[in-house]
Amino acid sequence: MPKLVECVPNFSEGRRRDAIDAIVAEVRRVEGVKLLNVQSDASHNRTVVTFIGEPAAVKQAAFQSCAKAAQLIDMEKHTGEHPRIGATDVIPFIPVKDVTMEECVALANELAQEIAQKLDIPVYMYEAAAKTPVRKNLPDVRKGQYEGLKAEIVKPERQPDYGPVRMHPTAGATAVGARQFLIAYNINLGTSDVSIAKKIANTIREARGGYKYVRAMGVMLEDRNVAQVSINMVDYTGTPLFRVFETVKSEAARYGVNIIGSEVVGLLPMQALLDVADFYLRFEGFDRKQVLEDNL
Amino acid sequence: MPKLVECVPNFSEGRRRDAIDAIVAEVRRVEGVKLLNVQSDASHNRTVVTFIGEPAAVKQAAFQSCAKAAQLIDMEKHTGEHPRIGATDVIPFIPVKDVTMEECVALANELAQEIAQKLDIPVYMYEAAAKTPVRKNLPDVRKGQYEGLKAEIVKPERQPDYGPVRMHPTAGATAVGARQFLIAYNINLGTSDVSIAKKIANTIREARGGYKYVRAMGVMLEDRNVAQVSINMVDYTGTPLFRVFETVKSEAARYGVNIIGSEVVGLLPMQALLDVADFYLRFEGFDRKQVLEDNL
Repeated sequence: MPKLVECVPNFSEGRRRDAIDAIVAEVRRVEGVKLLNVQSDASHNRTVVTFIGEPAAVKQAAFQSCAKAAQLIDMEKHTGEHPRIGATDVIPFIPVKDVTMEECVALANELAQEIAQKLDIPVYMYEAAAKTPVRKNLPDVRKGQYEGLKAEIVKPERQPDYGPVRMHPTAGATAVGARQFLIAYNINLGTSDVSIAKKIANTIREARGGYKYVRAMGVMLEDRNVAQVSINMVDYTGTPLFRVFETVKSEAARYGVNIIGSEVVGLLPMQALLDVADFYLRFEGFDRKQVLEDNL
Repeated sequence: MPKLVECVPNFSEGRRRDAIDAIVAEVRRVEGVKLLNVQSDASHNRTVVTFIGEPAAVKQAAFQSCAKAAQLIDMEKHTGEHPRIGATDVIPFIPVKDVTMEECVALANELAQEIAQKLDIPVYMYEAAAKTPVRKNLPDVRKGQYEGLKAEIVKPERQPDYGPVRMHPTAGATAVGARQFLIAYNINLGTSDVSIAKKIANTIREARGGYKYVRAMGVMLEDRNVAQVSINMVDYTGTPLFRVFETVKSEAARYGVNIIGSEVVGLLPMQALLDVADFYLRFEGFDRKQVLEDNL
């Protein structure tokens, strides 16, 4: 099986169907790239495109769709609820299979250079691809949005990592980064007391001394009368699913409560589930090549 | 992802390299078929070929390699330790992904008809494809081997399911079947007392009142001084890995012994491990399409 990288560019257009279609068509026409999802939101005026493939093909699809967005979207006229700095607002690369985070960071830098040189758009590197700690978090990079950055881009602390020290007249700026796959994971408790879910969420989330790569909150599933620990696993290679599950199980037991079920919302990489099987079956030296389908 | 079937034909030639190569070449030249393994044994004078692909392509590769074996192998001159009835001795189809056992049985019947009509070889259906219970077990079909069956084929109870009621003059007869994927799975115990492994093996194996699709024995890993429950899971969809693991854990605890590790020997279908993750994480309605790589 080939190396696999996922890419999830966000474009600042969620209303004009023809513009969205033209941008997505640039992804579709790259051989070896598989389009997984297109999600447009009119009030955000934003479209999130998800595709996957080998690194070089994914980079090409990202560049082409970014170039098309620069032609079709005018940030001077853009309005929408979601924060944004450019026509192609963010482009994250995500390792999926046989690819390291370092390779994704290198890919992000190659793309950033290409966007800067060929499209004359300033580019900011963020998350794992950030060149300084203060640009690690996307909200910091996007501070002031398009309008604010346009005024501040000449300040030393806001100059781009690649490209001109001024906004592109219509396409603005773009943030390019690399990050882990985010898994949306919910654990349902055998109780209708949401305060228990909230307490457990606090024990596992990074912000309160819990696991480094875990965001969590307690919510109530009104239709089922079930309290749920709702979790974002922002790096399943650092904090795996089974560890969070076992900790929630142990914390719930302290209140005499059981886990009645769990669910993954949307997609996840196969490795995240193989890690679960590996843990519970106490595998000695399991090799992913032993998975039949991985030999195809 | 396409439907996937595995096929593991056994050919009665394990010595002449050129004949083995010519037979395997018939598998290789079918587009959409991936050759996984070729294992020849000189004393058995037998070669086991493993390949995988979409059902129609796999059937074609099976037929072509069977036709080539009929040309190159003369059962009148064949000697070897392993029981056999023909040049292509057995052809089992194994469901791997998005394919039911019924589909594999249908595929086996199509292939059997083709072998009977085009190659004039008598064919016996076995295991899940057996047309009568007495032919379910391969040893019963192969009773008396090539020489014995040659004499008894005219008897009503030994007539083939497809093809002529006489052996092919050089290629003999062929058994075609469908079965589940066999997983070789070992569980290592935190003890050097092999009698405990033997007792546990007896509790889980079908022959002693245990799980229907489990064969097991207790063995000693001399180099590690560790007792092991060595298991063949002959249908992981009927008796899953996690159930066997949990039962061994519980039975071992009765002797104050822990499981220190487990291992899969060779390949296994991804579904077998997804079932493990599904069980331990208590998934509610997990869909295999949520696995990212399965969308490619």
